[in-house]
Amino acid sequence: MIIDCHGHYTTEPDQLHDFRKRQIEAIGDPAKWPSPGSLRIGDDELRASVEGAQLKFQRERGTNLTIFSPRAMGMAHHIGDYRVSLEWSQICNELIHRICNLYPNNFIGVCQLPQSPGVDPKTCIGELERCVNEFGFIGCNLNPDPSGGHWSGPPLTDRWWYPLYEKMVELDVPAMIHVSGSCNANFHTTGAHYLNGDTTAFMQFLTSNLFKDFPTLKFIIPHGGGAVPYHWGRYRGLAQDMKLPPLEALLLNNVFFDTCVYHLPGIELLTRVIPIDNILFASEMVGAVRGIDPRTGHYYDDTKRYIDRVVWLSAQDKQKIFEGNSRKVYGRLTAQLERRKAAIAS
Amino acid sequence: MIIDCHGHYTTEPDQLHDFRKRQIEAIGDPAKWPSPGSLRIGDDELRASVEGAQLKFQRERGTNLTIFSPRAMGMAHHIGDYRVSLEWSQICNELIHRICNLYPNNFIGVCQLPQSPGVDPKTCIGELERCVNEFGFIGCNLNPDPSGGHWSGPPLTDRWWYPLYEKMVELDVPAMIHVSGSCNANFHTTGAHYLNGDTTAFMQFLTSNLFKDFPTLKFIIPHGGGAVPYHWGRYRGLAQDMKLPPLEALLLNNVFFDTCVYHLPGIELLTRVIPIDNILFASEMVGAVRGIDPRTGHYYDDTKRYIDRVVWLSAQDKQKIFEGNSRKVYGRLTAQLERRKAAIAS
Repeated sequence: MIIDCHGHYTTEPDQLHDFRKRQIEAIGDPAKWPSPGSLRIGDDELRASVEGAQLKFQRERGTNLTIFSPRAMGMAHHIGDYRVSLEWSQICNELIHRICNLYPNNFIGVCQLPQSPGVDPKTCIGELERCVNEFGFIGCNLNPDPSGGHWSGPPLTDRWWYPLYEKMVELDVPAMIHVSGSCNANFHTTGAHYLNGDTTAFMQFLTSNLFKDFPTLKFIIPHGGGAVPYHWGRYRGLAQDMKLPPLEALLLNNVFFDTCVYHLPGIELLTRVIPIDNILFASEMVGAVRGIDPRTGHYYDDTKRYIDRVVWLSAQDKQKIFEGNSRKVYGRLTAQLERRKAAIAS
Repeated sequence: MIIDCHGHYTTEPDQLHDFRKRQIEAIGDPAKWPSPGSLRIGDDELRASVEGAQLKFQRERGTNLTIFSPRAMGMAHHIGDYRVSLEWSQICNELIHRICNLYPNNFIGVCQLPQSPGVDPKTCIGELERCVNEFGFIGCNLNPDPSGGHWSGPPLTDRWWYPLYEKMVELDVPAMIHVSGSCNANFHTTGAHYLNGDTTAFMQFLTSNLFKDFPTLKFIIPHGGGAVPYHWGRYRGLAQDMKLPPLEALLLNNVFFDTCVYHLPGIELLTRVIPIDNILFASEMVGAVRGIDPRTGHYYDDTKRYIDRVVWLSAQDKQKIFEGNSRKVYGRLTAQLERRKAAIAS
């Protein structure tokens, strides 16, 4: 089985965008607040939205299961207050749940959290529990900067976040560290803010005791770990200068990298410097980069092709990257797949 | 000749740190303002500060000339106002000038700019002109975020910066894009803020018309370009999705990357994906990472060793990386070296 651990629902029907527009327009004017019930999207529309996109690419590229979450840029935790963020998260997560029910062999859910700048992360626990316990989701996306590029909150290693981590550990779900859209003109969302968020989170972890406090807490750093693997020597040296243990012992029981790196040399670097046990296959399709690379004739984000072409990866290595590591990091994945199989058989 | 285009004066005598401390303490209390004349550092102290460090490493590693500038973390443009930044920049640049005079074969200067958050970049022109015209400096370090990690100013591509760029073009000096210390708890300075600054600047350039307006303006993005070469496929794809020309035509007449990447796989990636004409040798020594890699027995930041070991680089490629490209990007370098040679001969 080939599991893509990083896919967002980026092909939503127009009604969802229209609803969000009305929701944002109502900020500061409660009389205009749209009813979530006014958003009507039929199953056929949901099917149509993924049939020609995510499902088509799964078939064409030979991947099987996508760990699926709401559009990352769409989370926009910086817009409105907690109430806005909560309702928007509920709606987006419910759509993911419906798609997972429509295609139980193709999608398994990861939730958006109702984060809001300055608001206690405890307030995310209710929606996380609902998604995991009621919907069978297996993880969450955690935004290290709900301010959208102003980085005005505390680092991920601050005790501010600990109640959420306690719940993640209890539920046995990991988080993918994923910023949302940037509202800071300095940061292009997919070309700078995303990668900066990845790099920033890794260095926060490196300089913390977080994994002493939470030995089983797990994070996936997407986009191939931002700048981290390319600068692995820098990070090894920084840790050494700080008299810290080697990065493997310090971080790699808890921190994992996905393979959303859109060229062969990048994937080769990733698989050379990061232990295979810490690499999870992902493509982020349909995502940040949608074109076909004229040099190869294939989609930039068809990352399976790159991994297939790395000559030093053994069959066992590839099994880990494509499947085994995701089953290990997403602790509820295997049981959830078994439950689905049983439900389909019965 | 082997030219290291990225070296900071990170081994300053204690008197400089003491002066800076007094300067900072006087912020808001002008009566305490220390006189720059009270800072006394003798030539012997300057010599001692580099003999056992930068000069020793030059000899040991077989490099010749370091393009030398004040400590990047020390610029701290976010501290105090323009007046504080100006005086501090003047003092730091004068020390660089003195070291360059003491060791004309080993160092050539690049200046710190007296940037200050929210202050018009025009106010940097005076110090830039002084350093170039009076001291023979050949470039400047430009901080894309003088707020020190809050990113509260306009992007580098905003017209706000244009008067400074006009002067750079007139003087024929490039800028290295280099943030300073972070005062945002989210960003570790050397492990996150530096690399984020590099990545951010590149994407700002990619989404701008800056080099249509300034076809001869040149920037060096340090630390191997942040996350950029590792994600070169992503950037190629993003540009393509935006219907922009290929990155080579769009940016690579104006944007260059240094080799401050502290392991062989990173340097291999850099030299595989970035055209050789756009790579400038640099080590950042004595800088962010000071230890010896136990896997190799050599300093992490001895980047010459990595380049020496890249099998696909021809002698001509190496000549460009080690010397030719720096002579090309730093337009005043060759003439300045000739002037020095003539002065020494006469």
